[in-house]
Amino acid sequence: MDSPFSHLEGGEARMVSVGHKPVQERVAEAACELHCLPGTLAALREHALPKGDVLAVARVAGIQAAKGTASLIPLCHPLPLDQVLVEFDLGENCVGVRCTVRTSGKTGVEMEALTGAGIAALTLYDMMKSADKTMVVRELRVVRKEKG
Amino acid sequence: MDSPFSHLEGGEARMVSVGHKPVQERVAEAACELHCLPGTLAALREHALPKGDVLAVARVAGIQAAKGTASLIPLCHPLPLDQVLVEFDLGENCVGVRCTVRTSGKTGVEMEALTGAGIAALTLYDMMKSADKTMVVRELRVVRKEKG
Amino acid sequence: MDSPFSHLEGGEARMVSVGHKPVQERVAEAACELHCLPGTLAALREHALPKGDVLAVARVAGIQAAKGTASLIPLCHPLPLDQVLVEFDLGENCVGVRCTVRTSGKTGVEMEALTGAGIAALTLYDMMKSADKTMVVRELRVVRKEKG
Amino acid sequence: MDSPFSHLEGGEARMVSVGHKPVQERVAEAACELHCLPGTLAALREHALPKGDVLAVARVAGIQAAKGTASLIPLCHPLPLDQVLVEFDLGENCVGVRCTVRTSGKTGVEMEALTGAGIAALTLYDMMKSADKTMVVRELRVVRKEKG
Amino acid sequence: MDSPFSHLEGGEARMVSVGHKPVQERVAEAACELHCLPGTLAALREHALPKGDVLAVARVAGIQAAKGTASLIPLCHPLPLDQVLVEFDLGENCVGVRCTVRTSGKTGVEMEALTGAGIAALTLYDMMKSADKTMVVRELRVVRKEKG
Amino acid sequence: MDSPFSHLEGGEARMVSVGHKPVQERVAEAACELHCLPGTLAALREHALPKGDVLAVARVAGIQAAKGTASLIPLCHPLPLDQVLVEFDLGENCVGVRCTVRTSGKTGVEMEALTGAGIAALTLYDMMKSADKTMVVRELRVVRKEKG
Repeated sequence: MDSPFSHLEGGEARMVSVGHKPVQERVAEAACELHCLPGTLAALREHALPKGDVLAVARVAGIQAAKGTASLIPLCHPLPLDQVLVEFDLGENCVGVRCTVRTSGKTGVEMEALTGAGIAALTLYDMMKSADKTMVVRELRVVRKEKG
Repeated sequence: MDSPFSHLEGGEARMVSVGHKPVQERVAEAACELHCLPGTLAALREHALPKGDVLAVARVAGIQAAKGTASLIPLCHPLPLDQVLVEFDLGENCVGVRCTVRTSGKTGVEMEALTGAGIAALTLYDMMKSADKTMVVRELRVVRKEKG
Repeated sequence: MDSPFSHLEGGEARMVSVGHKPVQERVAEAACELHCLPGTLAALREHALPKGDVLAVARVAGIQAAKGTASLIPLCHPLPLDQVLVEFDLGENCVGVRCTVRTSGKTGVEMEALTGAGIAALTLYDMMKSADKTMVVRELRVVRKEKG
Repeated sequence: MDSPFSHLEGGEARMVSVGHKPVQERVAEAACELHCLPGTLAALREHALPKGDVLAVARVAGIQAAKGTASLIPLCHPLPLDQVLVEFDLGENCVGVRCTVRTSGKTGVEMEALTGAGIAALTLYDMMKSADKTMVVRELRVVRKEKG
Repeated sequence: MDSPFSHLEGGEARMVSVGHKPVQERVAEAACELHCLPGTLAALREHALPKGDVLAVARVAGIQAAKGTASLIPLCHPLPLDQVLVEFDLGENCVGVRCTVRTSGKTGVEMEALTGAGIAALTLYDMMKSADKTMVVRELRVVRKEKG
Repeated sequence: MDSPFSHLEGGEARMVSVGHKPVQERVAEAACELHCLPGTLAALREHALPKGDVLAVARVAGIQAAKGTASLIPLCHPLPLDQVLVEFDLGENCVGVRCTVRTSGKTGVEMEALTGAGIAALTLYDMMKSADKTMVVRELRVVRKEKG
């Protein structure tokens, strides 16, 4: 019986061959939420936004992580990325994080988008952890994937 | 009014000074859950476990990510890690992921534990995504932090 | 008199230009052997294989090293890899290691295959060194190279 | 029955805890040989040595690889290295490669020495492969390990 | 006759031994200037500062580069950094860049400070190059170095 | 009013989309000067040149940095490089550094050339700093950029 997992062959992990796949324009978008105390978000709006550094630092971290996905996720193929966007949406008790990645490549970029969103959220966590011990990253998932 | 965020000074992001902090034994543990279809977990048990490669690959990815945290999370200090453990717990409709990190250092290692758990979960996601388009990483948070 | 080494020009090391070379499907395969005590191999079969972690960890390390070759071997070109396979063959007194790399690129991938095989062998060495002080990596070489 | 491999616990790979181990001065030395055609070595002496670039490039690659060992060998601990030396000995039909690593750390540095020697040899291979298709890396092993 | 360069021994590059050196608090500060057209600086003040992203991105890049110095400058020792600061001063026709690095280590951190300042300046260059083709990085040097 | 900086949209840093841009042959050349005491240059000529290691080490560092630009400069696109050259010109009181980079890609490579030249200069600085405390890197700029 064959494995339903394309990365396994006879139980052994492998980087699947993409040699035969066409180069196509591909986009993937992933999102997650960093839940925190309302007071943390109020402080973020008040202290961090004037100079924007907190969100900018997290944005850079997400972009860099998306570019470095192949060195983080072992069976991912290294891909030339055409664009990486990281956006934030400040709500009442959470920060929405969204990462969009575009490539002209042979495989999809959902892992790049997930990695970018996840690391951007953890970078926010790092900068706000001195003020809030309750934070949780929730619902990290792919929200869009297209090609062609 | 001072910022409640120790990484901000006058609104500018910075790597806080830890020169004065004592070297102490520190441990942090983070966890998350990768939710998937029951059939995916059944396949994971049946196909992947005989040779264990799926979980081993994710474990290695989590360990490597924990060691590389300072290059992923911009304001984190590079730390010598004494130990990194990544453990999995296969449930009905999710895989529990737990990452424990120990250091003898000047700062805590919760970011290392969170990064290790998050990347281990995304590595599982990568290996199972050909079979399941519904997966979500949930509840990535610190579950233990101690020192001394 | 011209140098027979394409990486040298007037004695100075350089990354040779591949701008004019066509993108072609290329494959390279490298192999080596990790020689150890028979008892070490018996223990590897008995303790490690049930969960496969030892070989899986070495396989991941080899794959990641192959992908990172351009950052390890200074005059190598960064290449998008289509596939990396790392395989092991457990003999009486040695573990055979084989790494196969495919690309659609402008240069061959023998350095990627050699790096992947070598680091996979050293990762096995690392995991078994507490039990065996006699190990040696032997005969690391290219065993196949094709294009077109 | 316990595993003789300290990196395995219940069959699962792990980064062993070194929290309790004392910081000690440690040195390890590894060596290997790059075997090639006599004509290749003659050319290396004639063309490469005047400016030394070939050996210097390989030396740098070995030093950098030794420093990066923890990101290449998954279960290795990141260590502050006090010194890395890479030396070459040109024989009749092979280049001897030797890498010496010193640390004041909690674990030995034989993996750093092996990685440095192996990558230095592969870097020589890369620079000479246009002239010689017969090269083989042989006998990569630890030749000295001391502490205290 | 001995070489005045501590990194050379018999003409061969090496990573000097710091095993005998005491761990001391050390600080180094480096600076440079990114010269550009007055209109570029006016645009930077007007468009970029409201959200601060341009300077924050450059600040993060400088911090990350300082932390990664040992992988960029081959004979540098990897060091645990206690703090990295990157500051900007917007003048009439240039941006002053300053990077301060602190460590409790065995060697000085001027290379880390120089690398942080240089990469921060190049990151500004990258973000402003669509608007200004005249930019030059000037006077990258150490401005302070202390220990004890 | 639109920002003149293509990396900013609404004040937020982003990696611009290059999906629509054609793959073209592109070359960029950057240069800088490392100013030092005349005696330092005399020593460099006398001690370092016989085996060339100092310049070779700096050359390798520049090549590796150029290849790694996308991980250093956050909004740079990762690009496959066709060639990287680093050249030195020893003057009376300074070393001229020149880095030439070629790609077949969607964006220019001036950041790769600037990064390669800058890191090569800092690597020289590192190797000569034990003998000269007056060194300064000057005039790091793009000297040529072509495509098609």
